[in-house]
Amino acid sequence: MAEQKLPTRAEDFNEWYNQLVLRAELADYAPVRGCMIVRPYGWALWENIQQALDRRFKATGHVNAAFPLLIPRSFIDKEKSHVAGFSPELAVVTHGGGEKLEEPLVIRPTSETIIGHMWSKWIQSYRDLPVLMNQWNSVVRWELRTKLFLRTLEFFWQEGHTAHATREEAERETRQMLDIYADFAVNDAAIPVIPGKKSEAEKFAGADSTYAIEAMMGDGKALQAGTSHFLAQNFAKAFEVRYLDQEGVLQYCWTTSWGLSTRMIGAIIMVHGDDQGLVLPPKLAPYQVVIVPIWKTDAERAHTAEAAAKVKGALLDAGLRVRIDEREGISPGFKFNDWEMRGVPLRIEIGPKDVAQGSVVMARRDKPGREGKSPAPQAQIATASIEALAAIQKSLHDRALAFRDARTRDPRDFEEFKSAVETGFARALWCGDAQCEEEIKEITKATMRCIPFDQSAAGGACIFCGRPALYRAIFGRAY
Amino acid sequence: MAEQKLPTRAEDFNEWYNQLVLRAELADYAPVRGCMIVRPYGWALWENIQQALDRRFKATGHVNAAFPLLIPRSFIDKEKSHVAGFSPELAVVTHGGGEKLEEPLVIRPTSETIIGHMWSKWIQSYRDLPVLMNQWNSVVRWELRTKLFLRTLEFFWQEGHTAHATREEAERETRQMLDIYADFAVNDAAIPVIPGKKSEAEKFAGADSTYAIEAMMGDGKALQAGTSHFLAQNFAKAFEVRYLDQEGVLQYCWTTSWGLSTRMIGAIIMVHGDDQGLVLPPKLAPYQVVIVPIWKTDAERAHTAEAAAKVKGALLDAGLRVRIDEREGISPGFKFNDWEMRGVPLRIEIGPKDVAQGSVVMARRDKPGREGKSPAPQAQIATASIEALAAIQKSLHDRALAFRDARTRDPRDFEEFKSAVETGFARALWCGDAQCEEEIKEITKATMRCIPFDQSAAGGACIFCGRPALYRAIFGRAY
Repeated sequence: MAEQKLPTRAEDFNEWYNQLVLRAELADYAPVRGCMIVRPYGWALWENIQQALDRRFKATGHVNAAFPLLIPRSFIDKEKSHVAGFSPELAVVTHGGGEKLEEPLVIRPTSETIIGHMWSKWIQSYRDLPVLMNQWNSVVRWELRTKLFLRTLEFFWQEGHTAHATREEAERETRQMLDIYADFAVNDAAIPVIPGKKSEAEKFAGADSTYAIEAMMGDGKALQAGTSHFLAQNFAKAFEVRYLDQEGVLQYCWTTSWGLSTRMIGAIIMVHGDDQGLVLPPKLAPYQVVIVPIWKTDAERAHTAEAAAKVKGALLDAGLRVRIDEREGISPGFKFNDWEMRGVPLRIEIGPKDVAQGSVVMARRDKPGREGKSPAPQAQIATASIEALAAIQKSLHDRALAFRDARTRDPRDFEEFKSAVETGFARALWCGDAQCEEEIKEITKATMRCIPFDQSAAGGACIFCGRPALYRAIFGRAY
Repeated sequence: MAEQKLPTRAEDFNEWYNQLVLRAELADYAPVRGCMIVRPYGWALWENIQQALDRRFKATGHVNAAFPLLIPRSFIDKEKSHVAGFSPELAVVTHGGGEKLEEPLVIRPTSETIIGHMWSKWIQSYRDLPVLMNQWNSVVRWELRTKLFLRTLEFFWQEGHTAHATREEAERETRQMLDIYADFAVNDAAIPVIPGKKSEAEKFAGADSTYAIEAMMGDGKALQAGTSHFLAQNFAKAFEVRYLDQEGVLQYCWTTSWGLSTRMIGAIIMVHGDDQGLVLPPKLAPYQVVIVPIWKTDAERAHTAEAAAKVKGALLDAGLRVRIDEREGISPGFKFNDWEMRGVPLRIEIGPKDVAQGSVVMARRDKPGREGKSPAPQAQIATASIEALAAIQKSLHDRALAFRDARTRDPRDFEEFKSAVETGFARALWCGDAQCEEEIKEITKATMRCIPFDQSAAGGACIFCGRPALYRAIFGRAY
């Protein structure tokens, strides 16, 4: 319960985040360093994210499956960039059933290798293609610096894996899944994102190219919120994933993979949260509406409880996620603060006067104080709530977009660039060279977040080295 | 594809099962010995099981969460029966991030220990109780003899964990969850089960008492299909899970745990399957209806495709899971066999004559051949399908119950007992002694499956040792 005040975001954004995650009971630290427990309130948010994505995956023909968490160590070695990228991060099982294993096993850091191995058995002919799979699970990467939801040893995600007959089809799939992530981020999480391509330095270990959606957090820093990889034939060649084409010729498949994780919860916290706590987008909030009955006498209590139950029933019938706060011995003011801290989008207050008038007071989480309060008739409570939730969903997105736009600059020189990445994004002309990228990072701590697909404004000299620019790219300091 | 015939169940039940799981593409063997891949068709079945259970869990106030898969080795040692039971089965992580770990970690075999550890932080007061949690995940137990779905190193399940203020409340919860499993088994999986108590020898390592639902497979053997454990204060004491009661006195919590796994898929296969393949209960089948258009000429093809699309639309609108088989170069007869092997409950055939008459032919999977075929008008296809599916759901259950009843005997002496467990269950008077139980097992390979709650018929002499019987218990050879 929120008895002590959170630090403000301006005071200490990092500490605001860490305390809020614990206090809102979204997650907690596990006894094993760097591992996370997702508590019921956080998991309910994740379940809503899962449903919103899973629906989109299935609508585009993908099916779910489950591959094992234990992978032979030797599998990781089969794709040379993959082993270089993941070897330092592996958790290794050396003993099982009381005996030392002949070959060590690793806990999956991601599943391209084991899926490639199985596809080589399952895929024979062009008739078997495309293969469009996804799995919801957790993976383990031995990270040294961890932060709840953003970077943990074990994290929860979905990993999609697809195999195609042609390069074009695989590239289309890679972009389609990025579009799905962007659509989800904008429309469900209310987070504006910039879709684009990662640099060679930042791409997935084993990919031909990696695409990502990048979002700006409330402190101006960047967060990669979902990635989609075009793997070309790299894994198909490493694992002999081949098919007989219509002419009877044996061909390697073209594969993709794409993932979105519980990092998205971190993004939701950092994009929408304010000094009072979480502000959850209505489409994903575990409770969209909390009803707080207010009373002094026993008679008032009975009447407000009855009205609250009726309102709850009407909202449930309308398909909303609702909770009544009937806790005893706790003041209404405390309850208001508590649910504000937990980010419930809409609060409905019902006191004796409201009962008498057949009305309620609605309070919007995105507009604190009097500004967000308005009366609504109990008889039209479902319609009024649905409208309010839609307005909140829109306002969260628009506010985040305005914030990002205000903190995104087009620097004319490197001094302006340095100043821009202090507080947000620099959209800068860039030569595309890895050495240049590395030097910019050393000087400014900013990385090349992505090369947006829209390159209409490119042309000119690189912001850092002055050579001809190939792109107008997004730079920022990242989580 | 089903080009080769399955062995019949009478010929070789074990081989029939193993081949069917692979051929119906429910699962496959992973490269790591004893691990399993659940393929999309199998996972779709599991997702339907998940939804059916998750709905029941949430309706009874449980919430989902996610605890980490890595547990400090020392946690397992804290509860003395738990360590004895699980130590031989642990997978041990000794290295992470390229370095040897100071303390080895184990991959969870089950999560009582880590959940107990976290509850000791979260639970303070009687106001925090009850805690009613569940998680969907996978666990690892180093089994030596494995079989797809029934016993694998890694398996998928849900594990519920609850903490209560009183013994009575915890015992009620234990029984409530067993009731939920039984309700699911009977009404959704169409599998009759016997709920009851396990013996000391067969109870969960760390439990005060274990309850289970037991089902009879198509070969007369028993399968434990779900368990619910009353843990008393064993784990609460090991992990210091305490609360301040209303008088301000510190008390240990009473806890429970309960789980149901992908074994249930094995049960569905073995209870309902026939010599043609799977027979899936309509409530859980990934596809409840498959539509096979039949044509020779291009004109016929266009007409049957059009009718099939209309029928599909009507069934989707009615909330059914439907697929049209439009594969080319494959005969209708082959498609019929293929979908029969995959256990789709209802097939709808649409040929040129059906188009002309505005009708279809419905074929029930549970009644092979002509007996299961009947015409239905296209205009009433949704109603007709819903009725047929309900009839199939009921007939599967009734058939399984009749089979179990026919193979359950009440032996009057040990000779009859031995004969009974050759083909099914013996419902026998038993003294309740562990030594007696062990000797029965050595002689007959049958174990005490459960002591049914209904003990009205008890009293008399133990079927084996002749001492006074305490129970009438179910014995059988088990998976």
